Amino acid sequence: MSSSFGENVKFSVFGQSHSEGIGVVIDGLPAGERIDPQQVAVFMARRAPGRNPGDTPRREADEARVLSGLVEGVTCGAPLCAVIENADVRPGDYEKLRHVPRPGHADYALHEKFHGYQDVRGGGHSSGRLTAPLCFAGAVCAQILERRGVTVHAKIASMGDVDEAIRRGNSVGGVVECVAEGLPAGLGAPMFGGVENRLAAALFGIPAVRGVEFGAGFAAAALRGSENNDEYYIENGQVRTRTNHHGGVLGGITTGMPLVLRVAVKPTPSIAMNQKSVDLRTTEEVELVIGGRHDACIVPRAVPVVEAVTACVILDLMMEGTL
Amino acid sequence: MSSSFGENVKFSVFGQSHSEGIGVVIDGLPAGERIDPQQVAVFMARRAPGRNPGDTPRREADEARVLSGLVEGVTCGAPLCAVIENADVRPGDYEKLRHVPRPGHADYALHEKFHGYQDVRGGGHSSGRLTAPLCFAGAVCAQILERRGVTVHAKIASMGDVDEAIRRGNSVGGVVECVAEGLPAGLGAPMFGGVENRLAAALFGIPAVRGVEFGAGFAAAALRGSENNDEYYIENGQVRTRTNHHGGVLGGITTGMPLVLRVAVKPTPSIAMNQKSVDLRTTEEVELVIGGRHDACIVPRAVPVVEAVTACVILDLMMEGTL
Amino acid sequence: MSSSFGENVKFSVFGQSHSEGIGVVIDGLPAGERIDPQQVAVFMARRAPGRNPGDTPRREADEARVLSGLVEGVTCGAPLCAVIENADVRPGDYEKLRHVPRPGHADYALHEKFHGYQDVRGGGHSSGRLTAPLCFAGAVCAQILERRGVTVHAKIASMGDVDEAIRRGNSVGGVVECVAEGLPAGLGAPMFGGVENRLAAALFGIPAVRGVEFGAGFAAAALRGSENNDEYYIENGQVRTRTNHHGGVLGGITTGMPLVLRVAVKPTPSIAMNQKSVDLRTTEEVELVIGGRHDACIVPRAVPVVEAVTACVILDLMMEGTL
Amino acid sequence: MSSSFGENVKFSVFGQSHSEGIGVVIDGLPAGERIDPQQVAVFMARRAPGRNPGDTPRREADEARVLSGLVEGVTCGAPLCAVIENADVRPGDYEKLRHVPRPGHADYALHEKFHGYQDVRGGGHSSGRLTAPLCFAGAVCAQILERRGVTVHAKIASMGDVDEAIRRGNSVGGVVECVAEGLPAGLGAPMFGGVENRLAAALFGIPAVRGVEFGAGFAAAALRGSENNDEYYIENGQVRTRTNHHGGVLGGITTGMPLVLRVAVKPTPSIAMNQKSVDLRTTEEVELVIGGRHDACIVPRAVPVVEAVTACVILDLMMEGTL
Repeated sequence: MSSSFGENVKFSVFGQSHSEGIGVVIDGLPAGERIDPQQVAVFMARRAPGRNPGDTPRREADEARVLSGLVEGVTCGAPLCAVIENADVRPGDYEKLRHVPRPGHADYALHEKFHGYQDVRGGGHSSGRLTAPLCFAGAVCAQILERRGVTVHAKIASMGDVDEAIRRGNSVGGVVECVAEGLPAGLGAPMFGGVENRLAAALFGIPAVRGVEFGAGFAAAALRGSENNDEYYIENGQVRTRTNHHGGVLGGITTGMPLVLRVAVKPTPSIAMNQKSVDLRTTEEVELVIGGRHDACIVPRAVPVVEAVTACVILDLMMEGTL
Repeated sequence: MSSSFGENVKFSVFGQSHSEGIGVVIDGLPAGERIDPQQVAVFMARRAPGRNPGDTPRREADEARVLSGLVEGVTCGAPLCAVIENADVRPGDYEKLRHVPRPGHADYALHEKFHGYQDVRGGGHSSGRLTAPLCFAGAVCAQILERRGVTVHAKIASMGDVDEAIRRGNSVGGVVECVAEGLPAGLGAPMFGGVENRLAAALFGIPAVRGVEFGAGFAAAALRGSENNDEYYIENGQVRTRTNHHGGVLGGITTGMPLVLRVAVKPTPSIAMNQKSVDLRTTEEVELVIGGRHDACIVPRAVPVVEAVTACVILDLMMEGTL
Repeated sequence: MSSSFGENVKFSVFGQSHSEGIGVVIDGLPAGERIDPQQVAVFMARRAPGRNPGDTPRREADEARVLSGLVEGVTCGAPLCAVIENADVRPGDYEKLRHVPRPGHADYALHEKFHGYQDVRGGGHSSGRLTAPLCFAGAVCAQILERRGVTVHAKIASMGDVDEAIRRGNSVGGVVECVAEGLPAGLGAPMFGGVENRLAAALFGIPAVRGVEFGAGFAAAALRGSENNDEYYIENGQVRTRTNHHGGVLGGITTGMPLVLRVAVKPTPSIAMNQKSVDLRTTEEVELVIGGRHDACIVPRAVPVVEAVTACVILDLMMEGTL
Repeated sequence: MSSSFGENVKFSVFGQSHSEGIGVVIDGLPAGERIDPQQVAVFMARRAPGRNPGDTPRREADEARVLSGLVEGVTCGAPLCAVIENADVRPGDYEKLRHVPRPGHADYALHEKFHGYQDVRGGGHSSGRLTAPLCFAGAVCAQILERRGVTVHAKIASMGDVDEAIRRGNSVGGVVECVAEGLPAGLGAPMFGGVENRLAAALFGIPAVRGVEFGAGFAAAALRGSENNDEYYIENGQVRTRTNHHGGVLGGITTGMPLVLRVAVKPTPSIAMNQKSVDLRTTEEVELVIGGRHDACIVPRAVPVVEAVTACVILDLMMEGTL
C-alpha cells in the first residue's frame, strides 16, 4: 500500500502539504507504554524548519494532537492517531505549476499516475512536510525502544556547502548516517523480510532519498573478503566482532553489534535558478522559475527523519512473534 | 513475511542449500501468457556456476520442473510452482561449522534467531543457491514484460580483481547496474509503496547485497540541485529528460525514462585464508578454516539475479489495479 | 493488522468510544472521483442513534471532517482521512466496570490481551461507535461504485421484538441481508483472496456479528445438489442463472448475478437486568448492573454498516490489477 | 493474494486437480519443532477418498514429500514446502466442459476471470483436491499446537441422506462443527484482525463453504440478550463462563473458553442428473451431463479440512508478537 509500512506495527501516513491536516495512524503498539508528549515535541522540533541556514521560511507550529490510542498518556492497544493542522498554507504559490513539472520533483510522475488529479499545492502528498508525522511516530517508538535499552541516533555524514548554495540560488545534498545500539542478536529474517529489506523499504519513503546502504555498503564492493569480514571474539561473555563492516546485520538478521546504515539525500530540486521544462497541455518547452518557500539543503532536517523511520522499523522488527 | 515479496504478484521462495529441493511459487501471474521453457533455461544458465573464473565448483543441473500454474505452457491464473532438485549435495562439508560462525556469513545471526535449529548445511535457506528459483521467476516475468515492450538488463559496473583473489585464497565484490527500458510513466506510488521501496526491499533479499541506489544514487549527495535536476523536453511528442540523474523514477513513480539502479555486492565471505571466530558452546576463540566449495567472486553470477528480481518487481508494479 | 482491511484500497479505522476523535484513513482510492459530502452525511445519518425505538440515547453530531485526500471535493490519489470528534462523552459511567467484565462484551478478552491497559470507557476501540467512520468510508465507496453501475443495499431480514425487549430491560438481535447489484462477472479470486473471504473478514469486524453466509448459506447445507445448483441460461446475450442460491459468487469469484450475503447480529450484550460476573482483582463473583446508555437492538443501525463494509470490500475487489 | 493466508505464519497453496503436483509452502513456523510424518499421514488419510459412501472413486496415494524446511524431521525456520504428486489423472474427462459451465461450480466465474485460460481439468486450482495440502499444513500445525496444550477437533453437526442421494444421482451437504480447546485468553485483536475475521477468511477458502458462524452464530440472532450473554464465574482460580454462546471469542479475542465454529457445506455441485447450461461460444442453451468422478457428499471429507484450516489459523494467531 502506498502510504503505510510495517508488519507487526503498521504506520499509515496521511495528508498533503496544503491539506487541512496531516498525520499518522500507528496500529499495533504494545499496550501500557507511557508516551511523554514533551519528549515527542522535542523530537519533532528537530525537524521543524528555521534552525539551520537554508531551511524553508515556512513556519508551522507542528503541534501533534493525539485523537486516539492513549488513555491518560499511556498506550491502550488501540490505534494511535495523531493529527497536525496545516496552518501556514499559501496555495496560490503553486497553481501556475499545475501543467509545468519542476525538474527533480515528482510533479510529472504524479501527473501521469493520477491523470492530473494530484494535489499540486506544495508537492501534495509527496511533500517533505509529510515527514512531520513520521517524526511523531519515530518519537513514540524511540521512547518504547529506549525502555528496552535500544537507542537510535542519526547524524550528517557529509553535506555540500550550504552557504554557497544559498548565495547562488542553488541547493546541495548529503549523506545521513544512522546507528542503532542495544539491539539483540537474532532480530529480522532471511531473504525478503529482513532488517535491510524493511528498513530500506521504509527509508526510501523519505523524500529525496536516492540510496540506502548498510555497514560498509557500497565501499564493501571494493574490499577483499579478508578485509570486509568481521572476525568474532568474546567480550564479557558476549559474542562480538572486532570490526563492524557488516553494520550489525548479516543476511537480514541482527548480530547484536551496532546497526549502521546510511542514506543518500539528493540536493533539493527546488532552486531559484531558471530551469527548462515543458507545458503538458501544449507540449511546448518553457522556461521555469520556481517561487514558493524552499530549503536550500534538507540534510539537517532529514537527520531526525531518518532516525524516526529507523526507530519505527526497529520497533516493528522487535514485535515479531514467537510461540 | 520472511521469504516472499510482491503485492499483486507474490513470489515465495523455499528451500535450503542442501534440502531435497528448492523452488518458488508465483501467485498472481496474468492468465494466458505463454512461457517458453527454453528461454527460462537460457536465463537460468547465466546464473549457474562454472562460467566464470572464481565460480564455485559445485555443479547442479538446475532444471526447474513446473508442478502447477501452466497448462500446455500457458499460465492459467493458478499459482505457478517450480521445483529444482538438489543433486550435488555434500552435507558433510559443513557439520563442523555448526557451532563456529563464519565471519561475514549469517551463521551467528541465524543461530541466535533460530536457537541453533537453523539448517547449517551450505548456508541453509540463506545460501546463494536460493537465487536459482529467483532466476526462474525472473525469467518468467521477463517474458511477460517483453511482450509489453519492457526489457531489463543488468551488467557489472565495477568488480575487484578476481584472478588475484583466487591466487591468494581471497575474494572480491563489485557493483551490478540494472536498467529497465520501455516502462510507462506513472508506475508506482508515493511514499512507501513506490518503485524504489519495493525494488530495494526485494533486492536486499539477494545474498551479499549491502547497498541499493537509484539514478545518480550516492553520487547525487555531492551534486548541486542545478546539476542533479533533469530538465524536461519533448521528443516525438513524448515528455523526456535530457539527462537521467533521477534514474527513471521520482518520488516513487516512474517518469518513462530508463529505470537505473545499482546494487553493491560485498566480497564472498567464504575465503580460503585462516580466520578467527568463536565456539558458541565453549565461548572460546578459535581459528577457522573454511572447506566446502565457494565462489571467489559472485558478482558475475549476481548479474542475472539482479535482473531477475528487478523483472519480478516491475511485473508486480505493472499489475497494480485501476478502476 | 488489527484495525484495517483491504488490499488495493486500505481502510484503517482509529478511535475509541470516548477518545478525542474517531476516524478512518482510506488509502488507494482512485483519483478524480468527486465525493458529495451531502450524500455522505445522509448515509451516516442512517447509522446515527435516535431514529429507531431501542437506540442508545447518546447523541453525536457525527460530522466527518476531511483532513486530506480531497482537493475541492475530488479525490487526488492521496490517502483520505476523515475525523469525527467525540462530543457527548461521559467517561464516568464506565470506570466502575474496569475490573468487572460485562457478560457478552469483549471486556474480559480485551483485559487479557492488553493486560488491563485497554480503554474501558464505553467499550473503547471495540465500541459500536467505531462503525461511524466505517459508514463514512462506505458512503465514499458507494458513490464511486454507483458511477460504475454497482449498487449495494442492505435491509433487515429478521429481528426480535424490540418493544418487548425495551419493556423488560432486555435486548434482541437479528439478521441483516445485503445485496450488491451490477457487479461484473470475474471479480475476486479462487481460494483465500476471494469475494467471500474478503467480505467475511471485514464483516466480522462489525461489533456483534456472529455469522456470515452467502447465497443460500446455511440453508444450502440442507438442500440437494439438484435443488441448490443454479442452472445457466441466456438473457439479452448475458449469461445468467434462473435461481440465485449461489448468491452471485462461486469459488470466490462473481458470476454477474446479484451478490447476496447475510450477517447474524447478536442481541446487544448491555441489558438493564442484573447479571453475574467476577471481580478480576479479587476473583470474587459479583452482581453486575450496567448503567450508561445503550441500544436495546442495534439491528436497524447495523443495516447501513453492513452496506458500508460491503461497499468498501467491493471497491477493493474492483481495484484488482491486470496488465 | 489469492492462494495464501496467514500473517505471522503464511500458508501458500499451489496446484491444480490435474497438474503434475500440488502442495503448500508454510513460511514462519517456529524452529525446533519435531514433525512426526506418521501423524501427518494419519491426518491426511482422514481426507482421502474411499472411506465413506458417496466419496469420489478417484484414488491418490497423497504422499506428501517434504522438499525443505525440515532438518532430520525438525523445523529449521526456513519455509517448509510439501509436494504431493498427482498420479490418477484423467484429463480427458473434462475437455468437453471447457465451454459449458457446470451449475454450482466455479467454471463460469473462472472463465470470466481468466478469459478462458483457466485450467478446466477437474476444477483446476478450485478443485477440492487442493484441500490435501491444506490437511498437510493443518497436521503440521496441530502437532505444534498440541505441545502447547491446544487441540482442535471437528465433527459433522448435520448432514443430508447420502445413501438416498447416491441412489438418485444427486448430492447432499451438511454442517461441520469445529472446537478448539486449550486456547489462552487474549488471543486475537479487535475489529479486522481478530479470531473470527482470520478464521472466516481462511475457512471460506475451502471449496463449497457457504457460511461461517461462531458460538451460537445465526441462532444468536433470535435470542434475547439475557439468554445469549454468558455469565462469568471462577473455577479453580480461572475466569470461565457458565454457558458458551460466545463460542470462546468476543470482539475478535479469545476468552479461554472452547472456541466453537461451524461451517455450512453445500451439496456437491457435480450430480449425475441432467442439468441445463449454456455454451459460452454459441450462447445457446444446452443439456449437460457431468461425467468424471465425484463425491455425492463431501461433508465427511470436509471434517479434517475444517480442522486443518482452524489449526493453521490458530497457530498463526498464537505467533503474534509482543515486546
